[in-house]
Amino acid sequence: MRTVAWDDNAVRLIDQRALPGRLVVLSLRSVPEVATAIRDMAVRGAPAIGATAAYGLALAAANAGADTGAALLDEVRAAADLLRAARPTAVNLAWAVDRVLAVAERKAVAGSPGALRACILAEAERIADEDVATNRRMGAHGAALIRDGATVIHHCNTGALATVDYGTALGVIRAAHEAGKRVHVLVDETRPRLQGARLTAWELDRLGIAHTLIADCAAGYFLHRGDVDAVLVGADRIAANGDTANKIGTYPLAVVAQANDVPFYVVAPTSTIDLARPTGDDIPIEMRPGDEVTSLAEAAIAPAGTDAANPAFDVTPHRYVSAIVTEAGVLRPPFAASLAAAVAGARAPSPEPGL
Amino acid sequence: MRTVAWDDNAVRLIDQRALPGRLVVLSLRSVPEVATAIRDMAVRGAPAIGATAAYGLALAAANAGADTGAALLDEVRAAADLLRAARPTAVNLAWAVDRVLAVAERKAVAGSPGALRACILAEAERIADEDVATNRRMGAHGAALIRDGATVIHHCNTGALATVDYGTALGVIRAAHEAGKRVHVLVDETRPRLQGARLTAWELDRLGIAHTLIADCAAGYFLHRGDVDAVLVGADRIAANGDTANKIGTYPLAVVAQANDVPFYVVAPTSTIDLARPTGDDIPIEMRPGDEVTSLAEAAIAPAGTDAANPAFDVTPHRYVSAIVTEAGVLRPPFAASLAAAVAGARAPSPEPGL
Repeated sequence: MRTVAWDDNAVRLIDQRALPGRLVVLSLRSVPEVATAIRDMAVRGAPAIGATAAYGLALAAANAGADTGAALLDEVRAAADLLRAARPTAVNLAWAVDRVLAVAERKAVAGSPGALRACILAEAERIADEDVATNRRMGAHGAALIRDGATVIHHCNTGALATVDYGTALGVIRAAHEAGKRVHVLVDETRPRLQGARLTAWELDRLGIAHTLIADCAAGYFLHRGDVDAVLVGADRIAANGDTANKIGTYPLAVVAQANDVPFYVVAPTSTIDLARPTGDDIPIEMRPGDEVTSLAEAAIAPAGTDAANPAFDVTPHRYVSAIVTEAGVLRPPFAASLAAAVAGARAPSPEPGL
Repeated sequence: MRTVAWDDNAVRLIDQRALPGRLVVLSLRSVPEVATAIRDMAVRGAPAIGATAAYGLALAAANAGADTGAALLDEVRAAADLLRAARPTAVNLAWAVDRVLAVAERKAVAGSPGALRACILAEAERIADEDVATNRRMGAHGAALIRDGATVIHHCNTGALATVDYGTALGVIRAAHEAGKRVHVLVDETRPRLQGARLTAWELDRLGIAHTLIADCAAGYFLHRGDVDAVLVGADRIAANGDTANKIGTYPLAVVAQANDVPFYVVAPTSTIDLARPTGDDIPIEMRPGDEVTSLAEAAIAPAGTDAANPAFDVTPHRYVSAIVTEAGVLRPPFAASLAAAVAGARAPSPEPGL
């Protein structure tokens, strides 16, 4: 089952807030519902929210009563603005929206509303399908970095749930496992929303991959003991120089990995690379509500009225990144050159089906 | 109100597990009850468990039906073994037990059971009183390191609750505040048991000191932004070379502080210094139950059956420590020399009252 899919004029997705207790599937029938699902993190993970937003545009087109292509395009553009604003840090969201919009704009000049709807949905489906294929390619490239018998630290959730299917960093672990390598995953619980404890542990359990849950602040203990072969994380946005925005807690993990000579791998599709941002300083960091920190499972864990700061992401300077695994291969420093080449290769013009 | 005190043949202590929701005071009337309170962390914090164990020996003496000093001493020694084993990492526990036992052994040769009981209780009271005086001296020394307007990160709880009163690292913050300096504390929540969110936020609120709660893994974000003037932590045991065992998460905080040129201060009484351990590698690290990680506030936060690893402490190599604040002053590297001198000064023979 895909994390997000198109189903009978609705965007169908797994409500990740209910896991691991319950598997709840949402069927969203309006663009505001889709934007809310992204903002409230019913769906999260940079590639997953990209595909969700693309399907959200298909929903906008399906629901639009416009009788010309141009009028329909106006409605799709309004939906694009709403979806793009749902979360600021992951570039995949804007990337997917812009990609669908570009196709729609080309088609809208001459097309009927019906043809435009079909072409928008087809592009969304293509984004989703490509995500799965991309993840499998990253898995194959990255698995070569994992030795048989390895212990790796994984932060947040980057598995099937964070993507359309298969996963990015967790996809690499999965590919190594499927290649017959024994891998033990130290799962960072990933406060404040516990994506590691709730989602990654759940996925690894279903995949039959050995894992041990740890508090985020215990990762240093295991790195310092020499127990860890590699650290693997995903990314929400990679600047042109390789600086990587990812779930809060990624940066200290990278610093401590380097202090202990443990390789630190970022695994992300080229759609996560934002060459328009020269460095990580240019990446917007979302601040989320403080009550994600002051309470847990709806129980207060701090005195009433406690002020809390809740940056959802941090930026890891490229000097702490050993390699970036993309579908185009394993990129090494200097990243300014290797990232630009990978993006140029991935975005080279190719025949567009359906045009 | 002191965190721990002697009260009518009982050890009276605040049950720190109930805070911040409720202020529960336990009255412990047997040594096994005291050992359980330490092991289950009804009382925690290296100086607090030292004083608690000292009072535990007074309880052993009070409860012993022995009719000679030697017979009573045997019972006290058995209690000492039980208490010393309650938690392995903090040296203050063994230090306090050994100190009371040494006084008892000198007294037992000629003393009556009654005189021995009185002298054990007097030594426990002296340890508790000295702890408060020591903390105030550390506060005065350390406050000089905090500038007016400073933002500091604090990990775990090192306040009045972690000691008999006043606190160690939090005592320094308190002393700076009492000296009229404006201080803003970024409070690490301190997973898995959330001593920061539950206890430190509660203490700072009562003291009227500005504070903001953050997830442990968000500390790096604020350090990297340049928002932080200093990091302050306590210690459970300091090896002869300055390597410092403290609450899990201390080590990565120290590494990331250094990577951002932010001073990292350890605040601990000389009783925390263990010259018998050459380096941090020689310090035993307690592994606590995994369910502290897999559940929170009694709610499951991971799939049923998830394996979890839960080291309660980590060791911060001395090269990451800028200074160690003790009651004997602010110690600087090389710590092998400054620690030895401080301990020699603190343990120089002085007239023992009551002997």
